[in-house]
Amino acid sequence: MLYFVLKFWVKGGQVLWMKAVIIMGSKSDLDYCRKIAENLSEFGISSILRVASAHKTPQKVLEIIKEYEKDDVVFVTVAGRSNALSGFVDANTVRPVIASPPYSDRFAGMDILSSIRMPSGVAPLLVMEAENTALAVAKIAALTDEKVRERVKNYQDRKKGKIYKADEELG
Amino acid sequence: MLYFVLKFWVKGGQVLWMKAVIIMGSKSDLDYCRKIAENLSEFGISSILRVASAHKTPQKVLEIIKEYEKDDVVFVTVAGRSNALSGFVDANTVRPVIASPPYSDRFAGMDILSSIRMPSGVAPLLVMEAENTALAVAKIAALTDEKVRERVKNYQDRKKGKIYKADEELG
Amino acid sequence: MLYFVLKFWVKGGQVLWMKAVIIMGSKSDLDYCRKIAENLSEFGISSILRVASAHKTPQKVLEIIKEYEKDDVVFVTVAGRSNALSGFVDANTVRPVIASPPYSDRFAGMDILSSIRMPSGVAPLLVMEAENTALAVAKIAALTDEKVRERVKNYQDRKKGKIYKADEELG
Amino acid sequence: MLYFVLKFWVKGGQVLWMKAVIIMGSKSDLDYCRKIAENLSEFGISSILRVASAHKTPQKVLEIIKEYEKDDVVFVTVAGRSNALSGFVDANTVRPVIASPPYSDRFAGMDILSSIRMPSGVAPLLVMEAENTALAVAKIAALTDEKVRERVKNYQDRKKGKIYKADEELG
Amino acid sequence: MLYFVLKFWVKGGQVLWMKAVIIMGSKSDLDYCRKIAENLSEFGISSILRVASAHKTPQKVLEIIKEYEKDDVVFVTVAGRSNALSGFVDANTVRPVIASPPYSDRFAGMDILSSIRMPSGVAPLLVMEAENTALAVAKIAALTDEKVRERVKNYQDRKKGKIYKADEELG
Amino acid sequence: MLYFVLKFWVKGGQVLWMKAVIIMGSKSDLDYCRKIAENLSEFGISSILRVASAHKTPQKVLEIIKEYEKDDVVFVTVAGRSNALSGFVDANTVRPVIASPPYSDRFAGMDILSSIRMPSGVAPLLVMEAENTALAVAKIAALTDEKVRERVKNYQDRKKGKIYKADEELG
Amino acid sequence: MLYFVLKFWVKGGQVLWMKAVIIMGSKSDLDYCRKIAENLSEFGISSILRVASAHKTPQKVLEIIKEYEKDDVVFVTVAGRSNALSGFVDANTVRPVIASPPYSDRFAGMDILSSIRMPSGVAPLLVMEAENTALAVAKIAALTDEKVRERVKNYQDRKKGKIYKADEELG
Amino acid sequence: MLYFVLKFWVKGGQVLWMKAVIIMGSKSDLDYCRKIAENLSEFGISSILRVASAHKTPQKVLEIIKEYEKDDVVFVTVAGRSNALSGFVDANTVRPVIASPPYSDRFAGMDILSSIRMPSGVAPLLVMEAENTALAVAKIAALTDEKVRERVKNYQDRKKGKIYKADEELG
Repeated sequence: MLYFVLKFWVKGGQVLWMKAVIIMGSKSDLDYCRKIAENLSEFGISSILRVASAHKTPQKVLEIIKEYEKDDVVFVTVAGRSNALSGFVDANTVRPVIASPPYSDRFAGMDILSSIRMPSGVAPLLVMEAENTALAVAKIAALTDEKVRERVKNYQDRKKGKIYKADEELG
Repeated sequence: MLYFVLKFWVKGGQVLWMKAVIIMGSKSDLDYCRKIAENLSEFGISSILRVASAHKTPQKVLEIIKEYEKDDVVFVTVAGRSNALSGFVDANTVRPVIASPPYSDRFAGMDILSSIRMPSGVAPLLVMEAENTALAVAKIAALTDEKVRERVKNYQDRKKGKIYKADEELG
Repeated sequence: MLYFVLKFWVKGGQVLWMKAVIIMGSKSDLDYCRKIAENLSEFGISSILRVASAHKTPQKVLEIIKEYEKDDVVFVTVAGRSNALSGFVDANTVRPVIASPPYSDRFAGMDILSSIRMPSGVAPLLVMEAENTALAVAKIAALTDEKVRERVKNYQDRKKGKIYKADEELG
Repeated sequence: MLYFVLKFWVKGGQVLWMKAVIIMGSKSDLDYCRKIAENLSEFGISSILRVASAHKTPQKVLEIIKEYEKDDVVFVTVAGRSNALSGFVDANTVRPVIASPPYSDRFAGMDILSSIRMPSGVAPLLVMEAENTALAVAKIAALTDEKVRERVKNYQDRKKGKIYKADEELG
Repeated sequence: MLYFVLKFWVKGGQVLWMKAVIIMGSKSDLDYCRKIAENLSEFGISSILRVASAHKTPQKVLEIIKEYEKDDVVFVTVAGRSNALSGFVDANTVRPVIASPPYSDRFAGMDILSSIRMPSGVAPLLVMEAENTALAVAKIAALTDEKVRERVKNYQDRKKGKIYKADEELG
Repeated sequence: MLYFVLKFWVKGGQVLWMKAVIIMGSKSDLDYCRKIAENLSEFGISSILRVASAHKTPQKVLEIIKEYEKDDVVFVTVAGRSNALSGFVDANTVRPVIASPPYSDRFAGMDILSSIRMPSGVAPLLVMEAENTALAVAKIAALTDEKVRERVKNYQDRKKGKIYKADEELG
Repeated sequence: MLYFVLKFWVKGGQVLWMKAVIIMGSKSDLDYCRKIAENLSEFGISSILRVASAHKTPQKVLEIIKEYEKDDVVFVTVAGRSNALSGFVDANTVRPVIASPPYSDRFAGMDILSSIRMPSGVAPLLVMEAENTALAVAKIAALTDEKVRERVKNYQDRKKGKIYKADEELG
Repeated sequence: MLYFVLKFWVKGGQVLWMKAVIIMGSKSDLDYCRKIAENLSEFGISSILRVASAHKTPQKVLEIIKEYEKDDVVFVTVAGRSNALSGFVDANTVRPVIASPPYSDRFAGMDILSSIRMPSGVAPLLVMEAENTALAVAKIAALTDEKVRERVKNYQDRKKGKIYKADEELG
């Protein structure tokens, strides 16, 4: 009991709840990023949307990292084509970085490799599609936030429920 | 000050420190998994090695999940070929799951897609190679563990230092 | 003569005729599965349509397997993206499993590898497209059911006939 | 009881037990085919090894089909490169055909597509690697042969057992 | 002089002029084949259109080969997906065989490999697209037919002329 | 009868027998080209080996074309990497051109596309591997040379015979 | 000495400044080439548009090279499919050659390899898309032309500015 | 005016001639970079070797750019895997950037796409292999340096000469 009181106090007093900092390399991915944010909000996770390019405005990316990494954040990097952003952010922060590159059918989607083939010591985590990106962030947030954990559980249960329901409707 | 005392006490009293549960689909990936564990230990993160197949022993996988997910764990799933394990574990736990499939040159490494192309509501996080896998786990652990955070910082600094040193040696 | 009488009696008394259990991982593949069922019905083979996900509802998949595998059935598994379902079903039943993943143009269709690159001891059989899936099931059913065998023969003859007719029309 | 007696008599009198006819397109795949046969013998299934090319000796392939298809057989077709054999055999028999092309690293293994991209009405079933090919055949044989079914069950149990044992050894 | 008289007489008396036998595996490629034929007619080469499947009606393919190969013909084989037809025809005739598979975007067009990866002793010649297929046939016909040779020359000159004209129009 | 006498005389008097002009883009493919020539000699076809690069020495390529195209020749172009040679030769001669690029495992062999993806009006014919290249040339030569035709027939028969023999040895 | 004075004078008078010679292999790429030219004009670089095919009109390509290479030019070669043009131009001029092949989705864009896989001693520089092609040319021109250098700087600053503005608008 | 005199003097004295700044992302590519430098020295072009990572030490990369870009330099960026370095350098300098990624057979070499798929306004120029990289740099240097131009011409002539010699040796 004391544990929960203390925990509330400690955390409550500091607004430590995890949030997601979504950095997109170009404004053209704004819709995709908003979809991540909307899905995050359903897990009770707030998110910040930023535009910055590792290629063109690296200083700005570094400033964004500095601005947020003192808080408990997960960075979500959204960049298509040759994805420099994800590795760049990851190498310059101690915070977890989730790479969520929008799919492009150019070259059969093989741009994805630029999000995976990282040098040693650079380890962004890849996940595809907005909804799954939000889920992955939520699971990390859930490590320290029971409410999010419950919402993840409920979300997963709803997904299972849909399958059960779909199966019944066929019967 | 009080904050840190309380935090230590709360956590210290409960052995809450993050650990990694590394599940491999086959014993043949044991060396790869041990390398992840060794790298994790350098971040001060303990890990548990388990063998279970989502295809052949799904109940065992579910038991392993149940055994550990009440603790603050990150699951690391190591399976080559058609990787069912990562999505299977992810869908059945609220804990984060990191998919770390060993590279195979069959079909030009395209087995990787089986770790990425997840259905809605299933979101394991992909990272390649043992050392980077450990780093990614450590960054998640670092969210709640300052010591790990420092070790991640030091690790990243050493990586940067190597580059500076290599550059100087060329001069 | 006696042979056929006995055979009828033995089989007739037990309603042993082969049927297909079509499990789809998601309701979104329902049309595809119905097309398989329709094609199967032309071979006189009844089929059961079920929805269950190896990732999200593995217990349900196992229950479906248990429910049907005591009969003479062939399982048809229909799942796109990273196909865990086919290997999962195959590893948990002694019955033949046919993987029939709908084509997706993402990543140039290379999701197909997740239906092929099975670990040792897991051997779902891959075939593409609904009509051919039904034919493959029918050929297995035909091993023990002469009527189906005749229908397969007729079907193949009609296919050949179409080619002969097309050739004549060009003359 | 009567059932089994009759069944034995009916079948026993006709040597109807399923067997596998393994057709290789070239002698160079003999080792691979022998490995399939060896694995089949562990399931109590006998197999016949034949060499014939759909390209160069189609009449011979057709004769082999005619020679065996009156029995309860499964054809296993083993051909690399552009695999015409599997579709050719499948289109010319009512019996199930399993395509088991040996992997080649030329063109990143994409020869596999020639075993999959069949026209309408041609439906060989793809499985890779010798051991899994034998298992797939055995599961079809097991539909009508309880002894094979038991062996498949035992085989699957041994595979599961290996995983349990591997997991224990790590403990 | 005598040479040309004799040559005319010998050839003229026997209607030896090369023709193309275009075999399509399915009626669905009729438009494509007609386009080849139209292009051939511009080179003064007549063509015959036939439908036959190496998979489903191999005997018919063999009959077509026998029907025409006594004449000076080039076979053009048009089959998409897994192209068994081209190798099948080539292996069963001494006449040249040109494989002209229509492009399909399934699997990023990699069906093309099934037209290329031939076993030893089977050597259909690949060319893509209807117009280029006709040109390739014409060049073979041109070896023995001066009129066709002139038409090929004229055709090539027209192609060059188009480029010169396009360049001038930009000036 | 008169026909054959005349034909012999006409041809015999002019040494018109088809020959192959093998142009390699680089000396590094000499072994491969020699293998083609050796295989050609078994069909009684002489060949000429030349080195010239469409990129670096286009004038030389044009001179080689001019030197030989007045005779009844088939050009065989052997160039790896980005194969400019085959299309270049084809566009500048009325003679048939066979592209025979040696396989390279770089980029999964996809250099092959540079031998296939020709513009309109350029139509080299692709075949892979030295022996099959020789066979394809021989079939074209066989159109006008009965002796070559017989040798092709014998060659094909030997290939078939090998399969029959291999099959018997297994019996 | 006089040479440099003259050169200054000529340059001062604005005659010799670097220009781009854009050679397209086919008129069908005219729009793409015009877009390059328009982008170049924004950097103050004039460009010349020419049509010539390395396959079909190599002499014309050589003439174009000779016509312009005495000036300070960069060649831009625009050819899809199997790109022989870029390597051909590069091997026949001392001037830099930039290959800018328009993307085609055939074969998952792998035509690109024909612009990259050059033999030793042939080194066209690849860049994709019209705007980036112009930028790359401009950077080379900027080596000797301060005005272009300023325009490149301004262009880059505008690109950065857009990102800053997009980020602010989200705030 | 004085400027040009000085420039002449400086150039005449051989100080300012174009040089190449070769930045490698990791020391592991040192041999490859040295080979570029050796080839450059044959064109009379000096080069500077530096180690810096766009991911891990972006500030260092920016400092290197600043250190050299005031001179007439071409940057050569050498980075495998996901190549962030080339685009990063290009976006932060007005100088030309040549991306020369060493080939890796992982994922069939498709890492190359990370050097090509640049966002708008980022345009490094791709070339493969050390020798060709040096040639491409030399051609740019040759725009302003007649001596280099002569060496390029001689180099190209030697390459042509090798082909002529190889051809003669076959005769």
